[in-house]
Amino acid sequence: MLVIGERINGMFRDIAKAIREKDPKPVQEWAQKQEYMGAAYLDLNVGPAVPEKVEAMKWLVEVTQEATKLPLCLDSTDYDAIESGLKLCKQPAMINSVPAVQEKMDRVFPMAAEYGAEVIGLAMSEEGVPKDTESRVALAMELVANCDAHGVPLDSLYIDPLALPANVGQDHGPEVLETLRQVKLLSDPPPKTTVGLSNISQGTKNREILNRTFAVMGMACGLDSAVADACDEELMAAIATARVILNKDIYADSYIEIFMAQNR
Amino acid sequence: MLVIGERINGMFRDIAKAIREKDPKPVQEWAQKQEYMGAAYLDLNVGPAVPEKVEAMKWLVEVTQEATKLPLCLDSTDYDAIESGLKLCKQPAMINSVPAVQEKMDRVFPMAAEYGAEVIGLAMSEEGVPKDTESRVALAMELVANCDAHGVPLDSLYIDPLALPANVGQDHGPEVLETLRQVKLLSDPPPKTTVGLSNISQGTKNREILNRTFAVMGMACGLDSAVADACDEELMAAIATARVILNKDIYADSYIEIFMAQNR
Repeated sequence: MLVIGERINGMFRDIAKAIREKDPKPVQEWAQKQEYMGAAYLDLNVGPAVPEKVEAMKWLVEVTQEATKLPLCLDSTDYDAIESGLKLCKQPAMINSVPAVQEKMDRVFPMAAEYGAEVIGLAMSEEGVPKDTESRVALAMELVANCDAHGVPLDSLYIDPLALPANVGQDHGPEVLETLRQVKLLSDPPPKTTVGLSNISQGTKNREILNRTFAVMGMACGLDSAVADACDEELMAAIATARVILNKDIYADSYIEIFMAQNR
Repeated sequence: MLVIGERINGMFRDIAKAIREKDPKPVQEWAQKQEYMGAAYLDLNVGPAVPEKVEAMKWLVEVTQEATKLPLCLDSTDYDAIESGLKLCKQPAMINSVPAVQEKMDRVFPMAAEYGAEVIGLAMSEEGVPKDTESRVALAMELVANCDAHGVPLDSLYIDPLALPANVGQDHGPEVLETLRQVKLLSDPPPKTTVGLSNISQGTKNREILNRTFAVMGMACGLDSAVADACDEELMAAIATARVILNKDIYADSYIEIFMAQNR
């Protein structure tokens, strides 16, 4: 599983301040720290409070690329901001995200094709997050069909079945795991999968153990990536361990350190 | 998932000594400690070095039952020892274990029927542990058929797909997880599943993280129980968390403490 480091996000006060003051230092420090801990991508989100999202995203892309060679994951509901960022990316990036809503898919997939970007597709429609596996898989199929129609390779699509917080949407947990499994049967090659890992623990008491437990249970069901806290050392160790159990990385006594160092 | 506490086993020096000297104290202390930590069953194994296995098992059953009300899991390759123990059990016990070998199944399943015992059935034959899922499932099917033929309820059978140490049998990991899934399709009601959890980490450096990661990945694939170290607090917390994610226990901020206290 790949970790898309979640920390460069205007939801965090230090990043919001950095964007406001055009101070690259906090952004670049988090970029390097997440890279050091084993992140494979860095999510960039200007946050909800920024009025000029296009300019802010362009700035984030530029200052982040000065500090790291990791690929970027441009995270916004403002697709103009994402497109402006894609133009500046030095290597193929990821678009985070598009729901199974026709006009949004018609905006995002052509952009992904043009810039060679990967896409996170959310298993939700205008009506919101569905309750059961079947509805999630049906929405995933719409994403797959639209992805394919626009000539974006199917394994550049990451389906996010949308995990809800354990304390409010507990009945979604088994449905999300089952969706991860079934998504792998939708096409050949199958789409990849992702989740917003920290969602599962939003508002709960012991967030880290919920995050890392969900991550490895997801991996047992085909989870390929997650937007997550790469600086949570126990999470990274759990992911490294699940990779060994799934025979994706060869066992060595130092397998955790090897996993964390692989993208440096 | 239920934890079958592994600690009363003559492989441990303190238990071997207790059996040799007929000193109930270490056995009873471990019984109470494992019960306190959340074990649902207690495994009793006299160990390899005891010459008089029948007498030793009877003694273990008696002294353990003086200290706890938990059901017992009688663990021996000596079926006379198991039967002597079953006669003394105050409530239905578990037999650990029988491989898919005809003469052994013909000894164990009638005994299970007579004493109302559950049975751990190993997905192995005379030729040893198979390499792939298909062979494991075929052996599981033999166990299911023999279980049914002897009138033992199918949900009293726990199939153990046999997990190997990650550092020597790494390619078995995904096969074991897939076997857990497929075993659930063998009958209606399906058999239950179990593993010897500590096997996965035998001889590795960070045993605990391998154990708890495998446990919750297994649970995502249908693992119902494990012979495991109930006194590993992080393992118990991981299992409690996976139960919440699978919507088997209701979320509360104190769900870990609730899980650990449930069998006291």
